Amino acid sequence: MRRTDIVVIGGSAAGATAAITARRHYPDKEVYVVRQEKQVLIPCGIPYIFGTLGSPAKNIIPDTLLEKEGIKIVIEKADKLDPLKHTISTTGGEIAYERLILATGSLPGRLPVPGFDNENAFPILKDIHHLEILQKRLQSASNVVVIGCGFIGIEFADEICKIADKKVTVLEIAPYCLSLAYDEEFCVEMQEAVRSRGIDIRTNAKVAEIQGDGKVKSVRLTDGTVIPADLVIFGIGAISNVVIAKAAGLKLGPTGAIAVDRAMRTSYEHIFACGDCAEKVSFFGGRPSPLRLASIATLEARIAGANLYGIRREHDGTVGVWSTAIGNLAMATAGLTETAAGQNGYNCVTVVVDGLNRHPGGMPGGAPTKLKLVFEKNTGVLLGGQVRGNESAGEIINIVSACIQKRMLAEDIATFQMGTHPALTASPIAYPLVNAAELAIKALTVLRPKA
Amino acid sequence: MRRTDIVVIGGSAAGATAAITARRHYPDKEVYVVRQEKQVLIPCGIPYIFGTLGSPAKNIIPDTLLEKEGIKIVIEKADKLDPLKHTISTTGGEIAYERLILATGSLPGRLPVPGFDNENAFPILKDIHHLEILQKRLQSASNVVVIGCGFIGIEFADEICKIADKKVTVLEIAPYCLSLAYDEEFCVEMQEAVRSRGIDIRTNAKVAEIQGDGKVKSVRLTDGTVIPADLVIFGIGAISNVVIAKAAGLKLGPTGAIAVDRAMRTSYEHIFACGDCAEKVSFFGGRPSPLRLASIATLEARIAGANLYGIRREHDGTVGVWSTAIGNLAMATAGLTETAAGQNGYNCVTVVVDGLNRHPGGMPGGAPTKLKLVFEKNTGVLLGGQVRGNESAGEIINIVSACIQKRMLAEDIATFQMGTHPALTASPIAYPLVNAAELAIKALTVLRPKA
Repeated sequence: MRRTDIVVIGGSAAGATAAITARRHYPDKEVYVVRQEKQVLIPCGIPYIFGTLGSPAKNIIPDTLLEKEGIKIVIEKADKLDPLKHTISTTGGEIAYERLILATGSLPGRLPVPGFDNENAFPILKDIHHLEILQKRLQSASNVVVIGCGFIGIEFADEICKIADKKVTVLEIAPYCLSLAYDEEFCVEMQEAVRSRGIDIRTNAKVAEIQGDGKVKSVRLTDGTVIPADLVIFGIGAISNVVIAKAAGLKLGPTGAIAVDRAMRTSYEHIFACGDCAEKVSFFGGRPSPLRLASIATLEARIAGANLYGIRREHDGTVGVWSTAIGNLAMATAGLTETAAGQNGYNCVTVVVDGLNRHPGGMPGGAPTKLKLVFEKNTGVLLGGQVRGNESAGEIINIVSACIQKRMLAEDIATFQMGTHPALTASPIAYPLVNAAELAIKALTVLRPKA
Repeated sequence: MRRTDIVVIGGSAAGATAAITARRHYPDKEVYVVRQEKQVLIPCGIPYIFGTLGSPAKNIIPDTLLEKEGIKIVIEKADKLDPLKHTISTTGGEIAYERLILATGSLPGRLPVPGFDNENAFPILKDIHHLEILQKRLQSASNVVVIGCGFIGIEFADEICKIADKKVTVLEIAPYCLSLAYDEEFCVEMQEAVRSRGIDIRTNAKVAEIQGDGKVKSVRLTDGTVIPADLVIFGIGAISNVVIAKAAGLKLGPTGAIAVDRAMRTSYEHIFACGDCAEKVSFFGGRPSPLRLASIATLEARIAGANLYGIRREHDGTVGVWSTAIGNLAMATAGLTETAAGQNGYNCVTVVVDGLNRHPGGMPGGAPTKLKLVFEKNTGVLLGGQVRGNESAGEIINIVSACIQKRMLAEDIATFQMGTHPALTASPIAYPLVNAAELAIKALTVLRPKA
């Protein structure tokens, strides 16, 4: 039987990062990454395979990331875990460990409707072979229906549109696309932008059946509409992969993922879990968080990896920071939307500002940039932010995230020390983050009882 | 005599922002902005007039910013202040006020060398007419010498290069350009990038004389080198404009600027100062800071404007965050460089990481992005950061700034919750900010005494 110090099961964002972190914190320990894939896909890059990148092979997490840290990659399928013996069983035999990290990820959601298993109805598997088949079938498909209009759905639809001669329809059960990430005004803008690129978005659309004769022919909605389809893609989220953990008797949490504490420990002291397979707790109020993102996975992996031989880090709860891009339009979100804040019991003051991300207006590369900030009404604490702009939105949201994580008040943000430059950012007079915070203070002041 | 509530002298970044802030915090008060310029230039946009924008008229702070807040613009030159009477005198008569904000800015530095006053030797005045003359003279100049290789010097040189048939030489007294903003490895990169665009940068070059016969002919260095020049531009920093304040008996500070407390109050309770005319204190150690930037000016203006009728805000000291861009290369800095940290008495651990700001590598729009972080060795507090990349560097540095302002530790940054996206940012596995912090922890741990 092989013996090592640390075993990580899973080699995607969480597994790779957990292994790297473990090596950095415990350089004397040997680390195995056990994974079944020969090559690992970059999860968030998957939609871009179909239009921008051209093939799954161009969307790979390089193994050199692990190899240069001295991590051993074991390409075997892990089947079983024995927590009492400290062993796992794989297709290659048994491995004994001191510490184990489960980073087994998630499996794609499939709609529980008749016909979901017709040929050419594709879940999104993080598997090169599967995606190569999908890519090949897309070539000959004329009518493509994407079910689910979250960011994965939108990105898939837009990328498929870049392949010639496709009619792409996206179906969303909610009244707006992206409604978990953004408030209505942002959702509407993105929806219009996507539509303007020739994609048919249908909201309030509930799928009743995938129709076909073994192979997909059409999608029928509950309102009776029938949409022709040669190919269907399910972009409806992910379900934690807890097969090994559950069979080994590890406790599961309220959403069915592996239960973990703030140190990312499972119900066994020596077993940690991180990424899509692990339960998440919200930064806001501490209830379970349904978010599954690579950036969340890597944070959890950095906590798990550092804590293997003594707790060094604790999780403050998931803020939730992510972005999406369609052409030159980028949107990003951090923390709670106004809608989500209300649903979670917060009273809010929100401010929206709009301005150019260059100064003066004639500087090249600029885009009108809209920022919405959500503050708790009585304390002025920042709860969330949303940005619409061009590529700089992807980093602006990380400034917002820093403010949220440090529980900054509108007043702190109004006196934020930002750098500005004509060719790179908005003007220092009207820098949106600071400007929005100042406007929020005005609103917060109005809401205070007069002295 | 005219009477109003609040008078702001100066209408550039500090003055405009102070006036807007005053109106937002005290909406019942009337605000005058007294300035001599009919139109106000965007200070940081001035270099871009010559190549990118095409004319000073395209680099104007729009008066609508003030007008929509109900601020009255008084285009008169303020000459005198009587703090005891609460009045100022202008070219249009006297104005009585309740509260006064001095935002009189700075005047360009000129070298105290023979010949500095030859025709075609230009300081950089924030004045449309002056810049129009400079622009016109540049048309007929073949050899242009820019003295001073800070970011203003570099940006001027690069923009002038965009006009046909110019030989541009930049002279820097220090061993590297931009050495106040960056550590040597960044300076060298920028220097090489600027040189590759056809600009002759000469470092360790001390000017002895501007030679001419009334009109500039050449620049002689102390080592005897003579550089032909039809036109010379002084890009050697700014001197606080304290003419009115000094004559009125306001206390000046250690650098000769108007002395202010943390609330931006001068030695008279009812008079505030902000921007280039006001003394600055460093966020690091609290000594006087020589930095003069529009973003610093607007922060001070937000403090001054909010405090007019009761102290609401205090200044934590100047962090110093700024950036520059030459073509597609952008560099940005926040807080202390490694060199400056050493000079200020800190023991440091520094980490440099380099990676692409997209993932995977095939995603369009990416640039190799280098990040250096400077941590205090014993506590792990972040003291500074430098970024080299493309346009996203301008906002990445503001994430770094947020971390510095909240005195975040390497450990806080290693567990930063960032959002990532293939088309917008680096990968979540190797996000440079987080990666650099994790590497710093490794170094910090090594430096700690073994338990």
